[in-house]
Amino acid sequence: MASPRIGVVLSGCGVFDGAEIHEAVCTLLAIDEAGAEAVCLAPDVEFDEIDHLTQTPTGQRRSALREAARIARGKIQSTAEVDPDDLDALIFPGGFGAAKNLCDFAERGPDCKSLPEIERLVLAMHGAKKPIGFACIAPALAAKIMQRVGGAELTIGKDPGTAKAIEKMGSRHVVAPVQEAVVDRSNLIVTTPAYMLGPSIAPVCAGIRKMVQEVIALSRVTLT
Amino acid sequence: MASPRIGVVLSGCGVFDGAEIHEAVCTLLAIDEAGAEAVCLAPDVEFDEIDHLTQTPTGQRRSALREAARIARGKIQSTAEVDPDDLDALIFPGGFGAAKNLCDFAERGPDCKSLPEIERLVLAMHGAKKPIGFACIAPALAAKIMQRVGGAELTIGKDPGTAKAIEKMGSRHVVAPVQEAVVDRSNLIVTTPAYMLGPSIAPVCAGIRKMVQEVIALSRVTLT
Repeated sequence: MASPRIGVVLSGCGVFDGAEIHEAVCTLLAIDEAGAEAVCLAPDVEFDEIDHLTQTPTGQRRSALREAARIARGKIQSTAEVDPDDLDALIFPGGFGAAKNLCDFAERGPDCKSLPEIERLVLAMHGAKKPIGFACIAPALAAKIMQRVGGAELTIGKDPGTAKAIEKMGSRHVVAPVQEAVVDRSNLIVTTPAYMLGPSIAPVCAGIRKMVQEVIALSRVTLT
Repeated sequence: MASPRIGVVLSGCGVFDGAEIHEAVCTLLAIDEAGAEAVCLAPDVEFDEIDHLTQTPTGQRRSALREAARIARGKIQSTAEVDPDDLDALIFPGGFGAAKNLCDFAERGPDCKSLPEIERLVLAMHGAKKPIGFACIAPALAAKIMQRVGGAELTIGKDPGTAKAIEKMGSRHVVAPVQEAVVDRSNLIVTTPAYMLGPSIAPVCAGIRKMVQEVIALSRVTLT
């Protein structure tokens, strides 16, 4: 059997305006450790740059694809151009980019819209019964997209406001600790709280490793 | 005994113009997994930005400290301001930033100069018998600074050109595989090839984990 090809959707490079770097790298690490293949992806869109030293906007714009290429060491494709048939699974690390660049949940909450190419990709994978993982705040994006197909069971840890927003979008929120992953077996969706709970990289990475392993296990189920 | 405080010196955020992100994150992960504390550091200097999608210069400049803050999730200090007495050990991940922003080895080879604040910090740690780890191309920086105190035993994997440059600066180069770390016990310096050998994140992370564990073990020796 060929090793599963797992699309990793990045939204920039940095927790305050893009993909959370620790979560993204721990995802790539767990995929490689499992003998699977990571296919880094990002949308070719611009976002408002946040200075990560002062945590304030700079007034400048950056490209999600070009910044995400830093995490991918240059090897990355646009989410608009990837063929879902070439992927066995999909994973979204967190970071504000997932809630600002892939959708506008950070600004509009349950009334958010997701980027059309991201919605198309997720629905294509879901329709083909391929597993999808979401870490940190990315389950809010999952809730928005899964609203179209009846919702899912998701965790963002225990933050009451975000949990309520997820429920308002028609999904069910489950409280979970940072080292764990919640598996919605009927929808093949796996979620882990990551830095929504923290408190540091080792437990975050343990939860992400579990999420990746569950996604790979589900992808094998569907590959047979 | 208090947990060792380990300074992690970053040089930006991205393999082609700053700190190699996978190596930096795997260093932070191994430090946290070992129960030690990472103290992220970077010099407050500017560098030439490389577009990581096209791998070409953009003509723009970026700040090593502000970009490194992305890897550090905002919690970072300037290397000019850190007090070596507050650190039990020091680690340098690789990336071109180590050879372009912390010194100019990438341009000048064995005739390079290191940033004065980096040289001061390394020599202060070395003088206080505190261990220092270097990954990937960062051992070239180690060779330049250790030239002042008689050299060290180092690895960058097996790249002949870089090994020769290290020897020209008065250190001894040892061939090592990616999963291993070379320990110079008389100088308390630990090195690992990381992406100088690659080929992917899992073996790179295994070597970095070994390097971090050796650094911590040496720091405990010197703490008693």
